[in-house]
Order: sequence, then C-alpha cells, then structure tokens
Amino acid sequence: VLKPAERERLCVVLVRTRNPLNIGSIARVMSNFGIFDLRLVQPFEPSFREARSAVGAAQLLQEAKVFETIGEAVADCALVIGTSAIRGRELHQRVEVLPRGAALVRAALKRQRAALVFGSEKTGLSSQDLSHCNLLLRIPTREEHVSLNLAQAVAITLYEISRSVGKAPALAAKRATSGELDQLSMTLLEALRESGYIKGDSAEAIKLKIRRMFKRLALEEGDVELWLGMLRKMHWKMKRK
Amino acid sequence: VLKPAERERLCVVLVRTRNPLNIGSIARVMSNFGIFDLRLVQPFEPSFREARSAVGAAQLLQEAKVFETIGEAVADCALVIGTSAIRGRELHQRVEVLPRGAALVRAALKRQRAALVFGSEKTGLSSQDLSHCNLLLRIPTREEHVSLNLAQAVAITLYEISRSVGKAPALAAKRATSGELDQLSMTLLEALRESGYIKGDSAEAIKLKIRRMFKRLALEEGDVELWLGMLRKMHWKMKRK
Repeated sequence: VLKPAERERLCVVLVRTRNPLNIGSIARVMSNFGIFDLRLVQPFEPSFREARSAVGAAQLLQEAKVFETIGEAVADCALVIGTSAIRGRELHQRVEVLPRGAALVRAALKRQRAALVFGSEKTGLSSQDLSHCNLLLRIPTREEHVSLNLAQAVAITLYEISRSVGKAPALAAKRATSGELDQLSMTLLEALRESGYIKGDSAEAIKLKIRRMFKRLALEEGDVELWLGMLRKMHWKMKRK
Repeated sequence: VLKPAERERLCVVLVRTRNPLNIGSIARVMSNFGIFDLRLVQPFEPSFREARSAVGAAQLLQEAKVFETIGEAVADCALVIGTSAIRGRELHQRVEVLPRGAALVRAALKRQRAALVFGSEKTGLSSQDLSHCNLLLRIPTREEHVSLNLAQAVAITLYEISRSVGKAPALAAKRATSGELDQLSMTLLEALRESGYIKGDSAEAIKLKIRRMFKRLALEEGDVELWLGMLRKMHWKMKRK
C-alpha cells in the first residue's frame, strides 16, 4: 500500500479533456484511492469545476490546477508516465504494461513526485505530449478493441498503483465445533431413520457421507442451530401422525 | 490470462441500473476485456440500447438480455459474486478483497459459469439481491470515500479478473448452480411448511436466511442431490400420516 506521503507525491494530469463529466468522474475515483493532486492542461470547458459526477470530490475539483502547457504541469515530477492505446503510431519510448509500470511508479514515489498523464477522449496524447513522458503505460485490453473510456482508464491505473497485496478481511462468524457437527449429524440421521430414508444396511454409508459433507461445508455456529431447529420440527411432525 | 472459453463463461449482471450512459460505458469496457455476456435486471430506462457511451460495443448492447428477477438472471451460474461498498450494513456473506476474489472467479471459470452482480447507482444491492450471491467482492478504496462510480467499479473488476498474474486456488468439485440451489431452497421450504416450522409471517425471513446459508456453504452438485433425496423422503413421510 502507498504511504500517505507517497500518495501526496502522485498527480494526475489531464491534457485537453473535453467532457466535464469525465473530469468529475476522475476527481471522484482519485478521491476513492486517496490521490488529491489533479492538474489540467487546457481543459476544453471552463465549467468543469461544477461537474456533478465528482460525487464526494467537489473540493478536489475546486483545487485542481490549470496549466497552459504539459511541460509546466509536470515540471516538478521526476517520473512522467504517459498513457496511450498505442496503435499504429511510431513510438519512441519504452512501453510497460500496467502491472510493471505501476511498480515503477510506486518505487519512484518513495522519494519523488510522479505524474500520470492522460490525453483527450478523441485523440489521446500527441507526439508532442508524449515527448514529455519518461515511459508509456499500456493497459492490457483486447487487440480488437483497445481504446478505453478515459475515466475508466484512470480508475484502473490508480487501482493498480495503490493495490495492496490482498489481505482478506477477517471473517466474523465462528465455525461450528466438531462436537456440534456430530450432534447435527445424529439429529439428521434420526430424522432420516424415521422417514424411512435409511434402512438397515445403508446407515453406515450414509452416516459417513453426511459427516464428510458437513465438515467440508465449514458450517458456522448459527447454521447448526438453524438446522437443528428445522430437523427437530420435521422429526416431531413425522412421529406425531 | 483467461482462455476464450473461460471468458465466454463470465457474465456481468446489472440490477436496476438507472443511467443508460453507465450501461453503455460498461458495455464498452466489457468489450475491451473480451467479456460479451451482459444481463440486465429491471433496467430503469428502456432506451438503454441506444446509449452513445457504448463506443465500439453497440452489438454487445443490442444482445444484452433483460430479466425480471436476479434469480432468473443468474440461474445458470455456479459462482455469483456481489459487489458492494459494504458499509454500515450487516453482512451475512463472506467478503473477499478484489485480488483474492478475482482468483476465485478465474478458478470457477475453468469449468462453470460465473456472474458479477452490480447494483443500482443510488442504492447498490439490496439484502434480497445479496442473498443470491455466493460471496461479496470489495474493491479496496479509501475508508473515507469508499463508493466508486458504477462503470469504474466494473472496469476495475474486469481488469483484475483478466490480468495475467494471480495463481488460482486448487480446483474442487463442481459447484451447484444458482438454479439448483433455488430448487433446494424451495424443497426445504415446502418440507418446513408441512412440518409447521414456518407459519405465515416468518416465511420471508426464513427464506432469505436459508438462501444465504446455501450460497455461503458452496454446496457441490452431489450435495444438492443428497439433500433433495433426504428432504423429499421426509416431506413424503410427514404428509402421509
């Protein structure tokens, strides 16, 4: 996971973005991942700061900085990463697929500022823009349909950069003990005997089958209670007639 | 990387989605990652098929299937994954963070269908919806701003599932499909009604409780057969008296 100081060193740079809704969505997802430094180069619509899509990130959008040139926007960054669908144009730069590229960004952020640069919805980054980048990032998409929506490309990139190596949240419920499971098996077997499902010889095989299943299912304490209640009620009903 | 046959087994299910632009963006990013099976449960706007945001994915949107209930939408799926911001509501299901959850999806796709279920923009998935899910997926976002834009959540999830790294957990037996689990729930409920365990008002709450439990337990095909046999026998016995 990125440390707070590292997150502060990462900025997102949007070059000639046309749709204010995209800018808003990008502000929102930056906030989701704890990245707050948004920089815009020649945004198309001056009204972008009112974008309603910036749910929960209005302040981030208010504080976004606007620049005339990409050079000024990334002047304080030591690593500048361009993103591009990278098709049919001659490339002069190193290209990394996202997981490797993200590792490079994380490494840089330990001590220096890094910028993720995204081009306009229509044309992406120009050769001119790309010349400001240290390397290019490619999000691995399908050959026949490479071009991602801008806000989704930002979302995927920030997710990959800030991903933690997946510790699972702790499981709340307590597992049933072996004793509880045995009790459940017995209760079920008694009901089955009453119903005629088990007859003489078959008992031992079914007993094994049921115990194995209960063990494998990782039943929780509450599950055992629920089953005991249901089975007892059915057993009682069968007996009563 | 997912094989073509595995990609074909994955579907995206959108429940009560309101904004057609979101549906279009989701169609686009599905196409980017080579996932083509889109299913909609009660979409809010019937005009969604014309969404202009489905750049390069018009056909996918045309072929999307519409369902009345989530149960019907996931009936052929063996693994149903819900997504949720997971805040302030009581959870009855196992929660996995995205990287681990994605590994489970990849493992399931080797042989069976899996569904990713996303709720509406405003309210997410209801408890009712969640009861159809085997587990919940959490995208690790910042504590103070967890809620992602819908189309971005889908983008991040599909990226993570189709990424190359991630070792898959060892393969167990075939999981029961949602349709099979529904059949099992129904059979149990009928038996419980016969026994007097369920009376009038309690039916709906017990139904939910039972469905959630079956989903969480990851029952295998053979388990369902075993239970159906036992329950039918008990039901028959109770009726006969």
